[in-house]
Amino acid sequence: MNAAASYAELERRFARLSALNRASAILHWDRSTMMPSGAGEDRADQLATLGVVAHGLISAPDMPELLARAEEGAADLDAWRAANLREMRRVWIHESALPADLVEARTRATAACELVWREAKATADYRSLLPALGEVLAIMRRVGEAKAAVLGTSLYDALLDEFEPGGRAARIDALFAELRGFLPDMLGRVMERQAAMPPPLALEGPFPVERQRQLGEELIRRIGFDFTRGRLDVSAHPFTGGTPDDVRITTRYDEADFARALMGVLHETGHGLYEAGLPRDWRRQPVGNARGMVLHESQSLLMEMQACRSDAFVAFAAPRMRAAFGRDGAAWTADNIHRLYTRVAPGFIRVDADEVTYPLHIMLRYRLERAMLAGDLALADLPGAWNDGMRDLLGIVPPDDALGCLQDIHWPDGGWGYFPTYTLGALAAAQLFAAARAAEPGLMAAIARGDFGPLIGWLGAHVHGKGSIAGTDEILREATGAALGTSAFKAHLESRYLSA
Amino acid sequence: MNAAASYAELERRFARLSALNRASAILHWDRSTMMPSGAGEDRADQLATLGVVAHGLISAPDMPELLARAEEGAADLDAWRAANLREMRRVWIHESALPADLVEARTRATAACELVWREAKATADYRSLLPALGEVLAIMRRVGEAKAAVLGTSLYDALLDEFEPGGRAARIDALFAELRGFLPDMLGRVMERQAAMPPPLALEGPFPVERQRQLGEELIRRIGFDFTRGRLDVSAHPFTGGTPDDVRITTRYDEADFARALMGVLHETGHGLYEAGLPRDWRRQPVGNARGMVLHESQSLLMEMQACRSDAFVAFAAPRMRAAFGRDGAAWTADNIHRLYTRVAPGFIRVDADEVTYPLHIMLRYRLERAMLAGDLALADLPGAWNDGMRDLLGIVPPDDALGCLQDIHWPDGGWGYFPTYTLGALAAAQLFAAARAAEPGLMAAIARGDFGPLIGWLGAHVHGKGSIAGTDEILREATGAALGTSAFKAHLESRYLSA
Repeated sequence: MNAAASYAELERRFARLSALNRASAILHWDRSTMMPSGAGEDRADQLATLGVVAHGLISAPDMPELLARAEEGAADLDAWRAANLREMRRVWIHESALPADLVEARTRATAACELVWREAKATADYRSLLPALGEVLAIMRRVGEAKAAVLGTSLYDALLDEFEPGGRAARIDALFAELRGFLPDMLGRVMERQAAMPPPLALEGPFPVERQRQLGEELIRRIGFDFTRGRLDVSAHPFTGGTPDDVRITTRYDEADFARALMGVLHETGHGLYEAGLPRDWRRQPVGNARGMVLHESQSLLMEMQACRSDAFVAFAAPRMRAAFGRDGAAWTADNIHRLYTRVAPGFIRVDADEVTYPLHIMLRYRLERAMLAGDLALADLPGAWNDGMRDLLGIVPPDDALGCLQDIHWPDGGWGYFPTYTLGALAAAQLFAAARAAEPGLMAAIARGDFGPLIGWLGAHVHGKGSIAGTDEILREATGAALGTSAFKAHLESRYLSA
Repeated sequence: MNAAASYAELERRFARLSALNRASAILHWDRSTMMPSGAGEDRADQLATLGVVAHGLISAPDMPELLARAEEGAADLDAWRAANLREMRRVWIHESALPADLVEARTRATAACELVWREAKATADYRSLLPALGEVLAIMRRVGEAKAAVLGTSLYDALLDEFEPGGRAARIDALFAELRGFLPDMLGRVMERQAAMPPPLALEGPFPVERQRQLGEELIRRIGFDFTRGRLDVSAHPFTGGTPDDVRITTRYDEADFARALMGVLHETGHGLYEAGLPRDWRRQPVGNARGMVLHESQSLLMEMQACRSDAFVAFAAPRMRAAFGRDGAAWTADNIHRLYTRVAPGFIRVDADEVTYPLHIMLRYRLERAMLAGDLALADLPGAWNDGMRDLLGIVPPDDALGCLQDIHWPDGGWGYFPTYTLGALAAAQLFAAARAAEPGLMAAIARGDFGPLIGWLGAHVHGKGSIAGTDEILREATGAALGTSAFKAHLESRYLSA
């Protein structure tokens, strides 16, 4: 087979792989939203089988030959096809780097550890997690070593690469050092400033779920979520799933507090619009996938933190909130609601953190997971190291491990190397939003009218529609004029929390 | 590979096939209940890919060798494994009998014809359907010929075999001739008897959808539908889907008439309990599948027609209906509701037909589809033949083809050979219900208390738990003492509609 024919055959196979992965995505969504409780084992069998079939496609014996042949003709391919071939190689490397027994061991160990973790977290009993977590850590070291050997990177970078292609700890170290340089000080100033003002008034519930749902639907429809190609449902842990043509976002309602579900919906809508905006001609090939978790998280945080916690959007949304719940009065002014939505306070729980303290939670986890992977921190010493880090970074110490090192599912679940993408995403969100505002001078005024057209149009052209045609930094450089940095994030925090 | 190893390898492959088919079943369910309208092409691609992968598994080049080797050792297998091997061969025959281009042509032609049919039905324009339907008929003849050559049957029997393994037109001819011998006369007597009595009082709506849903859930929970392994949702066309461990039934609500949705839910519950009751150890192998459409339809009709339109069940359900809708009065007595539920009247539409006239609709379709497949009836002459048949069998003639030969999706959709299974199922339902009542003397009294335990227990032991270990007639003979016949059905109709 010549180069062109090899490339064509690869496209055919990766289209099939995409269809299998999209089918799995819908089945995963169903499992979290619709599936009756007794069908778990049945569904696990279906998903495992789809995984085996997909793995079989990628690891077919003739794949190395096909890839090599196609790469001989890479110079003749246009930009999309050349990038597609590069992404095919990337997928193949990650799929074929691990021996089958290691893949199976990881699946078994993380599933078992997740179960133990749920119990350990419920009883704040970290010691009971130690054996299972030790097993996971040992396996993740082997995974990292195997991938590092193929990728030619360090162990940590090899794990990170699965979530953020091309991501490197050296880059993260530099960025996090900058954050470390100003965030704790900034946090102190924000807290002082807040303390000098009367606290915002609380919004009193109850807020009926159906009204919350309608309000969320109304707002995300305005933002551009297309309900002919997506759904909004309920799940225990909010997520964005499905496919680019069938985006499934979820939330979780609390009748005492509508803001959390609403902000969650806006956050997932950012993820969902990225998926829905992936390049139409390429979304079933590797190059048409979202670039990585940094840009993905940037889209959700841009929507939630940058756009929807702005004065402009809250001014638009506040009357709709009042109408949805039939309320009025001093607590329901746009100004008070905006103050509620931008309240800062150090806390124990990462997922509840505001945007000023969130990176400090991430820096702690990043520091600890690198130390554990490197063998510099024994698992038995994690709680102490965690609490020391909390004191150091946030000035508070959790009263027990449930509010400390047991709070996140990532380590039990095998998601080592994932945490930094949250904060890199927050940096990218600020950088992209600043660039969008500079490029579209009427953008904030439009948002104040509930018109997200200018924002979504700019993101579509500069992020969503790019798929994986370039790396994260290249996409950011083209869109914003600079590689990923901290200055836009810092300017955003100063503007929102310390100015005027 | 020796016989035992070959059989073991086949079990491994068919387990994988089952997982793919179960994944497809959930994706089909989602398409009809949850999927946003714009995702149709995306989903079609996923399902087509799963179909291609499944077909690839079955038609692997070494399958004939594996089957032959395993069959050499069939005598050493226990009853379940021997039957499983026989069913594997059956699946393989149906999957491999057709050349790939014919499978593709059928998929394309039926999809195209279905679209034309929707428009033709809406405008009562049969002539516009002729080209597309002619294409489907030509392809179905080729399908039947190809399968007949492998199965050693007639063309019609080969088509029938896909829905009802081992089904034969000669058997159907004999059974339908018996029905033809008493049904028209019986219909006349039922109509006379009904006319001599004052008509039942109508139940006046509206009936809020949420109340209907709660009532349906309450009743099918009593019957034994397990909501930890199943769901009840809404779709345009009610169906039972999902998997044995995750049964998805659907209905469609009408605020003016709750009986239709409720009876539909009870009908699908019969299908659903069959799936849920398939043998636990074998439900992921061919022998653990439902036996065929005759027994499947027998289970839905047994539940709806035999059990839930009985005096006993209506007496149990009537107070719950009154409570659900907050109604009372003469129309809401069990006696009046039972009379409503057993009302008989010749009508144009099959799916609206009562159990006395329903078989006449089927006999017409069976007669016509055989004539069309044999070339004895030109497609252009179908409307005339349809109307003649309606006059002959039911004494009425539809005013247009929308109420006549355009009403069903089956022929445009490629479901040739399917229609007779509805009426064979009705015969089997009567025969099984009579046997269950004879074996469990307290069965009707239990149903009157809302206790379906004795009925479901008997069905589980004699039908559900048998899977495909034997043929339909053998299962019926073991359960009822006789092969499929008309006498129990006749006795049921006489008892319900002409006695006392």
